[in-house]
Amino acid sequence: MAKQIIAISRQFGSGGHSIGKAVAEKLGVPFYDQDIVHQVALEAGYADDVIKKFEDNDLTRGQRFVYGFFGNGPMSTSVYQYMWDAEKKVILELAEKGPCVIVGRCADALLGGREDVLTVFIHAPKEYRKKRIEERYDETDESVESRMEKKDRMRVSRYEANTGLKFGDATHFDLALDSAALGEELCKDFILQAAK
Amino acid sequence: MAKQIIAISRQFGSGGHSIGKAVAEKLGVPFYDQDIVHQVALEAGYADDVIKKFEDNDLTRGQRFVYGFFGNGPMSTSVYQYMWDAEKKVILELAEKGPCVIVGRCADALLGGREDVLTVFIHAPKEYRKKRIEERYDETDESVESRMEKKDRMRVSRYEANTGLKFGDATHFDLALDSAALGEELCKDFILQAAK
Repeated sequence: MAKQIIAISRQFGSGGHSIGKAVAEKLGVPFYDQDIVHQVALEAGYADDVIKKFEDNDLTRGQRFVYGFFGNGPMSTSVYQYMWDAEKKVILELAEKGPCVIVGRCADALLGGREDVLTVFIHAPKEYRKKRIEERYDETDESVESRMEKKDRMRVSRYEANTGLKFGDATHFDLALDSAALGEELCKDFILQAAK
Repeated sequence: MAKQIIAISRQFGSGGHSIGKAVAEKLGVPFYDQDIVHQVALEAGYADDVIKKFEDNDLTRGQRFVYGFFGNGPMSTSVYQYMWDAEKKVILELAEKGPCVIVGRCADALLGGREDVLTVFIHAPKEYRKKRIEERYDETDESVESRMEKKDRMRVSRYEANTGLKFGDATHFDLALDSAALGEELCKDFILQAAK
């Protein structure tokens, strides 16, 4: 069965986002990344007013503290948990709409196991990612190493909290690729071949 | 740089052995699996007489117990540790001999990081592996599930003890493939393309 939906998880700076975008362009299907999923969740009204205010920095420090810890979801979960519930809905809806590529937001874990879904993990050694981040992202006061480590930690902990799975465990993916060893072009080709 | 040496790690029953063999045949290079590495280590005299007797079941129960726990290596490590030290030597020597495919024996961890080495992990869901084992291996008194679980546990613990790495962590491999989702033929093709 052809894999109509491609769900990509990736390490920060590994090129997974660009590879996913290139695959979507080649296939002529929509490309959704974390920002799009997040935005759709907000616009669809899945995340309520408090989340929107939280996002817009439209809360007092006290309110942010309270919502950040205790949130306003039905189970008194944190803002993050509540936002994740909203994003989950969006991902499942986007997947119903038809063929697409989704990068990030644990889409691989949400959709994995479906016959029409190809799950992919893109990673690369730290040195490669560091160089790539330096070339592509704006400089900040924080060092690239520090940003990368923070992003890595955040991505791992969110993924594991959201899915109960180990981040980067090869057995959860149809395909796991080292973009530094293989090159972005070959990664793209492999995904296209696997999706056929 | 072309990847002259292909080191494959795999889950029991995933087809990693057959895929590795097919890749070696296609490339016209030697294929080494765990039995060959083990045999070479014994024949080369890297494992001393006690190991050979251990292997040949030529020790009393008391001797087996003592050697099994305390071994006879220079550091009084266990028989397994001592055998692993011998096999490590063999793998490094085989890799020096020229292009080849090595399956198992933690060769991926030993050789990974070298420019001329492609590291691959082959895995598959339990149901697929169970069916494959039933089709290909002789029946024993033990159920397939039980054999598979024991093999999985043993492989994971040996790999982690020998290498200090997490078994199946995608980030240690250039390429990790689900043989059930992709099919053995495509796995073979991906390895050949990645090795070019």
